Amino acid sequence: NRLLITTGSLQAIHILARAFIDPGDRVLVENPSFIGALSAFRACQAELRAIPLRGDGMDMSLLAKELNSASPQPKFLYYAPNFHNPAGIIYSMEVKQQMIALLRGRNIPVIEDDVYSDIWFDEKDLPEMMNLKAMNPEGIDICFTGSFSKILGPGLRLGWMLVPEAIYRKCELIKQSIDACSPSLSQVLADKFIRSGEIYRYTARIREEYKNRGETMIATLEEHLPEYVTFERPRGGFYTWLQLPKGTDTTIILKRAIEKGVVFVTGKTFDPAGVQNDHMRVSFCNTDAATIRRGIPLIAQAIREIIEK
Amino acid sequence: NRLLITTGSLQAIHILARAFIDPGDRVLVENPSFIGALSAFRACQAELRAIPLRGDGMDMSLLAKELNSASPQPKFLYYAPNFHNPAGIIYSMEVKQQMIALLRGRNIPVIEDDVYSDIWFDEKDLPEMMNLKAMNPEGIDICFTGSFSKILGPGLRLGWMLVPEAIYRKCELIKQSIDACSPSLSQVLADKFIRSGEIYRYTARIREEYKNRGETMIATLEEHLPEYVTFERPRGGFYTWLQLPKGTDTTIILKRAIEKGVVFVTGKTFDPAGVQNDHMRVSFCNTDAATIRRGIPLIAQAIREIIEK
Repeated sequence: NRLLITTGSLQAIHILARAFIDPGDRVLVENPSFIGALSAFRACQAELRAIPLRGDGMDMSLLAKELNSASPQPKFLYYAPNFHNPAGIIYSMEVKQQMIALLRGRNIPVIEDDVYSDIWFDEKDLPEMMNLKAMNPEGIDICFTGSFSKILGPGLRLGWMLVPEAIYRKCELIKQSIDACSPSLSQVLADKFIRSGEIYRYTARIREEYKNRGETMIATLEEHLPEYVTFERPRGGFYTWLQLPKGTDTTIILKRAIEKGVVFVTGKTFDPAGVQNDHMRVSFCNTDAATIRRGIPLIAQAIREIIEK
Repeated sequence: NRLLITTGSLQAIHILARAFIDPGDRVLVENPSFIGALSAFRACQAELRAIPLRGDGMDMSLLAKELNSASPQPKFLYYAPNFHNPAGIIYSMEVKQQMIALLRGRNIPVIEDDVYSDIWFDEKDLPEMMNLKAMNPEGIDICFTGSFSKILGPGLRLGWMLVPEAIYRKCELIKQSIDACSPSLSQVLADKFIRSGEIYRYTARIREEYKNRGETMIATLEEHLPEYVTFERPRGGFYTWLQLPKGTDTTIILKRAIEKGVVFVTGKTFDPAGVQNDHMRVSFCNTDAATIRRGIPLIAQAIREIIEK
């Protein structure tokens, strides 16, 4: 395996997309899925095949069905194991074991996008969070992408991929033609921060802060949301993913919410087909606990006003 | 016109290439041309049509011929007006006027890559160096690309494009799918450096240093080169472009030079067809005057040993 430093992890995904996809090729993604990855795959004119997410990861029976029926086979599977954006979930070990069993022998690489895994709330989740790259399953190429954006800040534009040698060689050439190399200033800063050990203290501190924000959000949502809105309680990361009654159009709720001074991201943003809109992503990344306590009741109000009208 | 900040000017060229080129499309480039641009265009599967450079710019009669015979018309013309890499030349005002006359009414945008223009040796060259973007010719879209790499350092990865609104909109979407945005740390640093005025003092200082290196190189080349090697005296930038006797293979000379402890870049690196190899690019960018005085005689020796053997 080789490490390639990239200008943010999105660039790592973009480069892998260019390395694997010819126009019209199929790729497997989650529904919902990270919008940045979807854009990168769309820019390569991939045909996106979406596997629905459940509370513990992709629906494995639907993945099996897709793999058995897909012809031609997909060029890769893209997934985010921990504190999924937007779904907020962790993949269970059982689901990951099933993924390995399903993918083995098929020559379908996995792009494993694990940028939130430092932002856990409870260390007892750590064993469950082990990524495929660390599990190192025989016979499956795992292209791991990571980032300093969620810990040190997105403005550094400092990400990486850890990939098998043959894939690295293709990606290095693509990287050269995109922006030659990544900012050295950011790399020097991150290097010092890591070597000094300061990164561990700092990460522990921001973990506490995000945990406080996340738990405040969970408590406020549980207090204010109508009972017909459900969600998985996030165990880390930045996001909560609210399921509204089937068929709800959250774009209408968003307009009402904006009038009240709050925003969220509508569900269809993360749907590979750009259609399903009965979820909303609520973020506790950039909002302190007091603001969350003020904002969530306004979102709950907007939901009630539209749905119960 | 809109300004898009990019992760180095190479990324600006890469994004413009993606915006304009479909596989198989023709694009007009110089011979010799900047290798980074050639890679970006090749990555989009462009068909490169090369117009030879002379001492004052592209050969205008060959550009006219190409434009009149080309079918389908090229998607854009890429050129570097000042202190060309590798040719070291400045485009004359006359050639730029002819370019404007030839391109007008053809709907062929120009990518004007002007990253060396701060590194002039003599301010009397400034009027001649005015770029097409500043001349603002009616009816021709000029996509200007610039960079802080040659003044503040390439590790900042801080470049930009200044392009018409419609082109900007396409490029912005492509930029988002490549790396979302450019390093904010670099932008903050450059911004402070500019607003404080320090950039003008600093640029004046490095200009003096590069002028000293460039003039040392010219003097040392004139003293040591055999009379069958010719070159245009650079008036700025980082490069001298040596013309060896027609048909010379500079790769053989490079091997001999490496044995002596000096390097240069062979001509075919910059040939869009990757063939013509009877030039060499000698750089005075990263080498102080004393090292230049020591190195050039070794290159001259290597040339003599291979050509006069």
